[in-house]
Amino acid sequence: MPKDEYQSRAFNIVGTRPIRPDGIDKVTGKARYGADMTAPGMLWGAILRSPHAHARIKSIDTSEAEAMKGVKAVITRADFPKLDLDPGMADILDNSMAGEKALYDGHAVAAVAASSKSLAYAALDAIKVEYEVLPHVVDVDLAMKPDAPVIHAARQDETVPEGLSENVTSRSQYGHGDPEEGFKKADLVIERHFTTAATHQGYIEPNACLAQMGADGQGDLFVCTQGHYMVRDTCAEILGLEAGKLRVTASEIGGGFGGKTHIWMEPVALMLSMKSGKPVKLVLTRDEVFRATGPTSSSSTDIKIGMTKDGKITAATGTFRLQSGAYPGATAFLSAMCGFAPYDLEHVRTEGLEVMTNRPKAAAYRAPGSPMAAYAVESVIDELCQKLDLDPLETRLKNAAREGTKSAYGPTYPAIGLEATLKAAQEHPHWTAPLGENQGRGVACGFWFNFGGNTSVNLMVNPDGTVSLSEGNPDIGGSRASMSMMAAEELGIPLDQVRCVISDTGSLGLNDVTDGSRVTFAVGLATIKAARHAIEIMKTRAAMKWGIEPEAVDWVDGAAVPAGPNAGKFPPMSIKEIAAIAANTGGPIAGHCEANAEGAGVSFATHMVDTEVDPETGAVKVLRYTVFQDAGKAIHPDYVEGQFQGGAAQGIGWALNEEYIHDEDGRLLNAGFLDYRIPVASDLPMIEPVILEIPNPGHPYGVRGVGETSIVPPLAAIANSVSRGAGVRLTSLPMSPPKIRAAVKAG
Amino acid sequence: MPKDEYQSRAFNIVGTRPIRPDGIDKVTGKARYGADMTAPGMLWGAILRSPHAHARIKSIDTSEAEAMKGVKAVITRADFPKLDLDPGMADILDNSMAGEKALYDGHAVAAVAASSKSLAYAALDAIKVEYEVLPHVVDVDLAMKPDAPVIHAARQDETVPEGLSENVTSRSQYGHGDPEEGFKKADLVIERHFTTAATHQGYIEPNACLAQMGADGQGDLFVCTQGHYMVRDTCAEILGLEAGKLRVTASEIGGGFGGKTHIWMEPVALMLSMKSGKPVKLVLTRDEVFRATGPTSSSSTDIKIGMTKDGKITAATGTFRLQSGAYPGATAFLSAMCGFAPYDLEHVRTEGLEVMTNRPKAAAYRAPGSPMAAYAVESVIDELCQKLDLDPLETRLKNAAREGTKSAYGPTYPAIGLEATLKAAQEHPHWTAPLGENQGRGVACGFWFNFGGNTSVNLMVNPDGTVSLSEGNPDIGGSRASMSMMAAEELGIPLDQVRCVISDTGSLGLNDVTDGSRVTFAVGLATIKAARHAIEIMKTRAAMKWGIEPEAVDWVDGAAVPAGPNAGKFPPMSIKEIAAIAANTGGPIAGHCEANAEGAGVSFATHMVDTEVDPETGAVKVLRYTVFQDAGKAIHPDYVEGQFQGGAAQGIGWALNEEYIHDEDGRLLNAGFLDYRIPVASDLPMIEPVILEIPNPGHPYGVRGVGETSIVPPLAAIANSVSRGAGVRLTSLPMSPPKIRAAVKAG
Repeated sequence: MPKDEYQSRAFNIVGTRPIRPDGIDKVTGKARYGADMTAPGMLWGAILRSPHAHARIKSIDTSEAEAMKGVKAVITRADFPKLDLDPGMADILDNSMAGEKALYDGHAVAAVAASSKSLAYAALDAIKVEYEVLPHVVDVDLAMKPDAPVIHAARQDETVPEGLSENVTSRSQYGHGDPEEGFKKADLVIERHFTTAATHQGYIEPNACLAQMGADGQGDLFVCTQGHYMVRDTCAEILGLEAGKLRVTASEIGGGFGGKTHIWMEPVALMLSMKSGKPVKLVLTRDEVFRATGPTSSSSTDIKIGMTKDGKITAATGTFRLQSGAYPGATAFLSAMCGFAPYDLEHVRTEGLEVMTNRPKAAAYRAPGSPMAAYAVESVIDELCQKLDLDPLETRLKNAAREGTKSAYGPTYPAIGLEATLKAAQEHPHWTAPLGENQGRGVACGFWFNFGGNTSVNLMVNPDGTVSLSEGNPDIGGSRASMSMMAAEELGIPLDQVRCVISDTGSLGLNDVTDGSRVTFAVGLATIKAARHAIEIMKTRAAMKWGIEPEAVDWVDGAAVPAGPNAGKFPPMSIKEIAAIAANTGGPIAGHCEANAEGAGVSFATHMVDTEVDPETGAVKVLRYTVFQDAGKAIHPDYVEGQFQGGAAQGIGWALNEEYIHDEDGRLLNAGFLDYRIPVASDLPMIEPVILEIPNPGHPYGVRGVGETSIVPPLAAIANSVSRGAGVRLTSLPMSPPKIRAAVKAG
Repeated sequence: MPKDEYQSRAFNIVGTRPIRPDGIDKVTGKARYGADMTAPGMLWGAILRSPHAHARIKSIDTSEAEAMKGVKAVITRADFPKLDLDPGMADILDNSMAGEKALYDGHAVAAVAASSKSLAYAALDAIKVEYEVLPHVVDVDLAMKPDAPVIHAARQDETVPEGLSENVTSRSQYGHGDPEEGFKKADLVIERHFTTAATHQGYIEPNACLAQMGADGQGDLFVCTQGHYMVRDTCAEILGLEAGKLRVTASEIGGGFGGKTHIWMEPVALMLSMKSGKPVKLVLTRDEVFRATGPTSSSSTDIKIGMTKDGKITAATGTFRLQSGAYPGATAFLSAMCGFAPYDLEHVRTEGLEVMTNRPKAAAYRAPGSPMAAYAVESVIDELCQKLDLDPLETRLKNAAREGTKSAYGPTYPAIGLEATLKAAQEHPHWTAPLGENQGRGVACGFWFNFGGNTSVNLMVNPDGTVSLSEGNPDIGGSRASMSMMAAEELGIPLDQVRCVISDTGSLGLNDVTDGSRVTFAVGLATIKAARHAIEIMKTRAAMKWGIEPEAVDWVDGAAVPAGPNAGKFPPMSIKEIAAIAANTGGPIAGHCEANAEGAGVSFATHMVDTEVDPETGAVKVLRYTVFQDAGKAIHPDYVEGQFQGGAAQGIGWALNEEYIHDEDGRLLNAGFLDYRIPVASDLPMIEPVILEIPNPGHPYGVRGVGETSIVPPLAAIANSVSRGAGVRLTSLPMSPPKIRAAVKAG
């Protein structure tokens, strides 16, 4: 059987729904999260944070704190080495501990390590910081104005056009054709301005770590992160260490969603450990999580689309302005790439602008940059359909990108699944279900690239024939289960014979961060390759035992089988039998794969949602929600469905309620889950997931990756639903009750 | 340069003495030993132990203990699964938790897990065990008598001659020639009987572990051991788990010396965790370490040697009887193999007898079986030299095994270093230094095989060009330093660019136990091979960058260099430069090696010691001690010297003071370091180590392994010294003051 021919392969394990292996430990509190590690002689760390959105730090007096009994280290930026770092690394350091200026409410300015948690906080109170408060700006549009307070001078690159403030750090541009020509061919052109608020990933587990630096320059870090190799390499670089000296172990992770793909306070913990000579544990409070770890960017977008009466898009343009917080690096370029990616357009141009503000450094949040772009684009398409009296699914199908389409961001698509999701939506009973008064049905499409990246996997055949699988990506979405399934599938053994663990940076080669929906694709690919490597070794061992050439051995159903001229000469030798003779045929059996995985498959989704608006209060009730998404191949459908549902749920929160609210001094007013309102179970209907499987030709099993696309369409789908139900087009998120009530009243 | 030609190789790093990387953490209390791990919701375990040396367990009433608030699990043997285990595995289970009979004072009979340590011990007091006390035997000679109490029936194999009790489980035989013929040619034949006492390895850190079994059947175990893969595979087998389900992490280890190559209480901790559903920590007290973890075997030996007047040994025979404790498995066969291994003998026959007694299961203790054999053999040789007025070094040289000698245990030796140690001893000033009254000088030789075994190593080149080295053998003697040195040597980079860690069983392939002096040899071999694998990959990456064939690239001084027709065309590309392009040339770079290492080199030592006997008190003072040992190649000479010194120090304790003392009921009377007297610093002179380097042809750098040979000669060297100083031949260890005083008086 040609094994990489996805279409011809029958799966035994892949596609089934075994119980998740880590579930019980998590719900019974036995899983070891970031805050669960201790060490002999451990100290507690705590961080003093700026109360000002923008302020020059005139002086920091730590003497009183240092004199307190039980306080073992007090650090400020002055304690960090002065290295010639590249700007990106220098920013990470500056974000970890402020230098000359505090750049946002919550910016770290000092830290202590003490023998107890309460003492550490008491010591913070004893640190005296003298600030000179500076003018601040937190709004992305205001920050672009030429007279806006400048967060950092001289960080603007040559791509930025003249006339914008220095806070605009870069501009990216995509597209092809001549939109002006295209707009001329349209029967209707709509241009709209949209805004979205900053939202937090809202992971359950606050960031936490335990740092232990030895006097020998070797260190250990146990940390809650989506990428412990990234933590290692970044911390090593900004602290002037060598990467190999730092062994980083990832804890279980109580959610990340992109928010834990960054460095927030790990260098502080390491520096406190260096200075105190003791292990230091640092656990952020929820207040700190909100004030000092990155939310997604707030955005300001202009979209213009022209359409013919029969629903053909003739041209489209978009300008996406994303605030990046206090340092360069928003994902406006991704907005500019993703916004029109679902469509086959003759004339399309986009630009992305990245803008600094006095906010915490913006972070990735599932498909960064894409949801706000889809929100604006899909809203305008919906309005065009409304005004031209067109079916919104049929219209999207008419314009849908397909195999061979030159995408709005450049590449020409191979086989993709957008049409399949739209057709599945058309055929689903949800589409034709009746709606009541004040109810609206919204649909929207969304796109995400997915990613491959650097990946290392070790697969060990144990002496009893069971298999240990070592991977290096923190399991945020069930990857241990999925990897075990792919290994078992490839080896031809029962799933319960495989256990997958997440190894530390000292035990396994480099793995890129768990992001870009890369893990099931890339680590799966490496797992399959490592399994094939182990199979080759096992065939050799069987051949040795049989006294035949390894080339004359096949691998069938978890066993070596003599083939060709030797077929039938010996009974099959199972993996257990081969494992038992390993020591006498050369030693332990292990397969390895190190690769920078290529061939990730782009992914599309169509979401459909019914909402009901209460015109009196402006409250929105989500009545029904269906997700249609192309998974490529769903390795463990439960997890895939969970990703679909989770993305939709987070998108619903983003659309309806979530936002960072600042006072006039730029201080965050709602730094906690009581005031920052994420959806709870009672806010949500059962979200129905519909998995489409259009195989990715770049993966042996067809996997694409599913973690991010699912958050792209909900903002627009909800907005379209609410706009249709309320009878008024809404262009600003969140669509919180006051905003809706005002819009409805304004009519 | 032919790299495997040890003789032609110049080393840059190997052979130097860098500071040990783990030293500061250990002395400042930051190293994480077995008892240092905690887990959320952790319970404390404790074990109830038999107060009888031999007793039938009539009943165990755990109801009162189970009813105590905070007691979460009480287990007895009845809680363990009834599996069809092979006898060796069944014994390990039975030793962990007694079945029908308690077989020694201290044998575990029940265990509890409770929310605090004090509560766990209180619960032990509430368990009622009804015993029927049985006759017992703790002496090896008494246990062999036909009427001795039988520990286990039906465990005797077919090798045992008739007329011995069932406690004698097996006999092994070695040798060649016809000793009776040889004795006829001798001018003097001496036959002597010797005894040695059981001694404990005396590691600083009591055994400890933290077990966590999940409801999903997956478990984690953090344990102080010399072999976490062995712990995994053994615990899995006796608990009916699959090996892959159990992830075992080795803690730092506060000494092992063979005593931690066995399973003692890990299955109990795992079973307590299974039954309670919680993580369980189990830390033995020192009392438990003495009463329930294996000491070495006590022994009873008969040696007969014939010698000509000019010092040629004409024939030799030996019978070595070693008690194995309560289960079969003493190392009498190793005594029978090692005793005469240093000599080139025409006629030699040995037998080893393994004998069960009512003692804790005997354990490995550095070169198991060899020290007591050397004690007896070298004592008789010394007495022959005395009586024939021969030089003891010259006589040993005359009979020394050398390349081509057919050894007493079978194989013919390749290049070996015994002669070199004897000649170094002759040339050393110690040999000719004057002696005072009551002082004696003893010399003795010793032999150990050394071992290779299953080994897996991963070597990762990090993005910054530093190297992470992953090995799977707990570092008891500086192996992290030695492996890092060999990796740096092979890669051609500075030592501080490499960090070696001990990986868990889920992250790295199988590694045999840290025993047999195997690690520096076998893991070193695998490290060198993994480094060579990584070098091949790096050469390929450089070739890719240069656009030339990989075969046209050499590796010189940590860099790829174009060679052959391309020589000089491109500047060398360093490991850092290659690491920097790894992502763009295929992904992460790692070298791997899995092997069952062959080619271990046997090792010999000659020890020389001066002692002074106080004829009034019988006390012995060790005045001067010199160790001459063949290391093959000393990777890190400090560690090698430490092994030489440590082996000698432990041997001195064994020779002079250490013994298990039982009362008439078979209870151990001296279960603690106050009453079991190991040597302290003030008991010892500076032990001078002399490293000889006769390269092992089976290792690229010539390594043999040094951890065990050093404990083989001291018993005999001290005995010969004391016998010469006291003027009376002593044949029973320990040579404690009462024994010496009695012998001198009997004189």
